[in-house]
Amino acid sequence: MALQENAPSLAVVGVTGAVGQEFLSVLSDRDFPYRSIKMLASKRSAGKQLTFQDRNYTIEELTEDSFDGVDIALFSAGGSISKHFGPVAMEKGSVVVDNSSAFRMEEGIPLVIPEVNPEAMEGIKVGTGKGALIANPNCSTIICLMAATPLHKHAKVIRMVVSTYQAASGAGAAAMEELELQTREVMEGKPPTCNIFKQQYAFNLFSHNAPILSNGYNEEEMKLVKETRKIWNDMNVKVTATCIRVPVMRAHAESVNLQFEKPIDEYTAKDILKSSPGVVVIDDPASNHFPTPLEVSNKDDVAVGRICRDVSQDGYKGLDMFVCGDQIRKGAALNAIQIAEMLL
Amino acid sequence: MALQENAPSLAVVGVTGAVGQEFLSVLSDRDFPYRSIKMLASKRSAGKQLTFQDRNYTIEELTEDSFDGVDIALFSAGGSISKHFGPVAMEKGSVVVDNSSAFRMEEGIPLVIPEVNPEAMEGIKVGTGKGALIANPNCSTIICLMAATPLHKHAKVIRMVVSTYQAASGAGAAAMEELELQTREVMEGKPPTCNIFKQQYAFNLFSHNAPILSNGYNEEEMKLVKETRKIWNDMNVKVTATCIRVPVMRAHAESVNLQFEKPIDEYTAKDILKSSPGVVVIDDPASNHFPTPLEVSNKDDVAVGRICRDVSQDGYKGLDMFVCGDQIRKGAALNAIQIAEMLL
Repeated sequence: MALQENAPSLAVVGVTGAVGQEFLSVLSDRDFPYRSIKMLASKRSAGKQLTFQDRNYTIEELTEDSFDGVDIALFSAGGSISKHFGPVAMEKGSVVVDNSSAFRMEEGIPLVIPEVNPEAMEGIKVGTGKGALIANPNCSTIICLMAATPLHKHAKVIRMVVSTYQAASGAGAAAMEELELQTREVMEGKPPTCNIFKQQYAFNLFSHNAPILSNGYNEEEMKLVKETRKIWNDMNVKVTATCIRVPVMRAHAESVNLQFEKPIDEYTAKDILKSSPGVVVIDDPASNHFPTPLEVSNKDDVAVGRICRDVSQDGYKGLDMFVCGDQIRKGAALNAIQIAEMLL
Repeated sequence: MALQENAPSLAVVGVTGAVGQEFLSVLSDRDFPYRSIKMLASKRSAGKQLTFQDRNYTIEELTEDSFDGVDIALFSAGGSISKHFGPVAMEKGSVVVDNSSAFRMEEGIPLVIPEVNPEAMEGIKVGTGKGALIANPNCSTIICLMAATPLHKHAKVIRMVVSTYQAASGAGAAAMEELELQTREVMEGKPPTCNIFKQQYAFNLFSHNAPILSNGYNEEEMKLVKETRKIWNDMNVKVTATCIRVPVMRAHAESVNLQFEKPIDEYTAKDILKSSPGVVVIDDPASNHFPTPLEVSNKDDVAVGRICRDVSQDGYKGLDMFVCGDQIRKGAALNAIQIAEMLL
């Protein structure tokens, strides 16, 4: 039973969203201890009922007063909500774990993947009256770095070329519903409903819908570039990314090409990854069994396979690999709750 | 009217397959001149009727006698058929345009993309009594090189990192049907039928099902590596590829990272590509309009977009781009018929 007198009080901001709902599942799965939990959402959802661990909760409207007595606030309600209410919660002494991109690149804000850089949030504690904010990295960054970091620690990555295969869930529950609806419509020969995305998504794929910046990259791609540097605390690591949405429900895949400073071969890489927490190696050429989005859906671990020595790089300084991870879980909710666990 | 007295006699080998059917559409679309055409397939399809350009044809069984009097034989019936019957047709004086991988890497066999290396088939003529065989490159290679070659000619590509997003059509008409069937089944909550592929394809993606070689690459990936070298006649160009099947019907997409010997910027690259035959640039950041498999389906041109200067490479020596092309058309049938056109 996770309801405990001396445990922290929680708030979930954006509880009706895909990640908000996953926050609850993960809290439950991991038996996260809490003495109370506030279910917060927009005015539209306020008053609705919700059952969590056999108790009924009424969803409350998120306001400036929502964070009185809240120890840990898990945010996943978009950047503008975080930007406004994150500082409000900190002011009230809450430790905010924020899933949005609002504060990720701000100096002094830890950007944390618990398996990768737990040291970045050292000194942050709950219940001290001193608020803080820890940012959850972008889903593609988390999934990529779960696999790349153990190899980076061994042989130092100097350049990384990433191509993503991103699921509908990254754009929220409505996008997942639209993919399903569109698929039905296309199969029936009807024109697809395009509310969330501007174009047909079923049986198609397209450049990630994040805004395009002046350098020609989209925001999603530059998150991978910049967040990697911050998380690895290495301003010299070179990263490029092409982010593509594919008609898959809830897990991302990434094709990752790595260039190392020191030599590393594919056998060493596999051994390192096999013993890395939160990573599972699926790499069986004989049965052609490698990671797929479907196999990692609703799973905690990030799966890595197709680990090959890159034939386009001399010597033992290059590797290719294919990585899959559940976007809602390790890409968002699980990572945030692992951060919260480190606060206990 | 493409039926002409002095035009070559044709044979289509594998006429009932996805590419075989597309051979007929493309011959028709391009008003390819011929004086006769033999529709060849396996025993199973022999005797069936087929209408082409308002004439009825009976499908004939492919035998050693099929090529008597045939000037140009278009093959798309798999590697083992090509291996056996390609030499038989050549013996009879036919010029074979072979869509399989059987002869692609053989010395002396031209491997041709007409917009890229037409010079490789110089001297080959029809109706001389001297047979010949010209290989059609793999679909992913054709689509990639249609976009990469014009840039290569300008600034010399020294390394290329490719990640593919490959359609069902690459595995034939039955794979396309299975994707549709599986999608229906999954939407109805039923287990998916897995005859062509060993796993669920609907709402999923997976490492290309080609056999894995001892270096960890699969055959599809090594085709990109090796065919690029042969087509560019450059044994030093370094290529790596990760080939992934995505639940899309008939057009491939490829994320391509390029490293050049000489400087090139994104504006020059776009200008070069805009004036390249068989290439269309779709690159509108303002409306987030970039190439998609759906938009190029049933189209001849390969579409290129997301042309950015690579932030992970110093100076002006790196570019990222995203390429889409119809797998059955430019990736197979159209390219083969363009080769045949050069024989006229």
